[in-house]
Amino acid sequence: MDFTKLNGLIPAVVQDDESGEVLMVGFMNDEALRLTLDTAYATFYSRSRQTLWLKGETSGNRLAVRRVLTDCDDDSVVVRVVREGDGHVCHRGTRSCFTREVRR
Amino acid sequence: MDFTKLNGLIPAVVQDDESGEVLMVGFMNDEALRLTLDTAYATFYSRSRQTLWLKGETSGNRLAVRRVLTDCDDDSVVVRVVREGDGHVCHRGTRSCFTREVRR
Repeated sequence: MDFTKLNGLIPAVVQDDESGEVLMVGFMNDEALRLTLDTAYATFYSRSRQTLWLKGETSGNRLAVRRVLTDCDDDSVVVRVVREGDGHVCHRGTRSCFTREVRR
Repeated sequence: MDFTKLNGLIPAVVQDDESGEVLMVGFMNDEALRLTLDTAYATFYSRSRQTLWLKGETSGNRLAVRRVLTDCDDDSVVVRVVREGDGHVCHRGTRSCFTREVRR
């Protein structure tokens, strides 16, 4: 993977493995990707807290990883997951973070 | 939208509106997003060429935009599209850029 384009990070698109719904976009550094692959639970790098972040560690809403796919440039990944806990991925209590339409 | 977190850019996840397949991840600046909404064709900001990039302008494989969704932090978008031309989104001639699995 190429982590050089965004100061050590790559975008990680989290997609529901069953429905195909895009649930959230996070960022991973090299270690977050390694942990995601090793543990089969999605781990991100929090840009605001500048630390690794096991998604759902406190809420229980962990993301069990089925597959990780990379693109042609190796500078982003799609993480196909099964939602655990109450199934809410967004901290606002919705299944997906992408709930609002952007209009002109 | 919040363009401050990545030096004026946000990740834009391109998703096939019919199948739900994630086709590519690009980046948009404020102008690329405005053009995407105004023209209903996906326009990105090329980080390597440092210029706006109307996807498919030369190949004809444009991405007709059905909907743009933003997330809870307003720092990324999902662009739901219909593929035009030969339907190949990746420059390598595949429908999606995400073709390879990452393993431990």
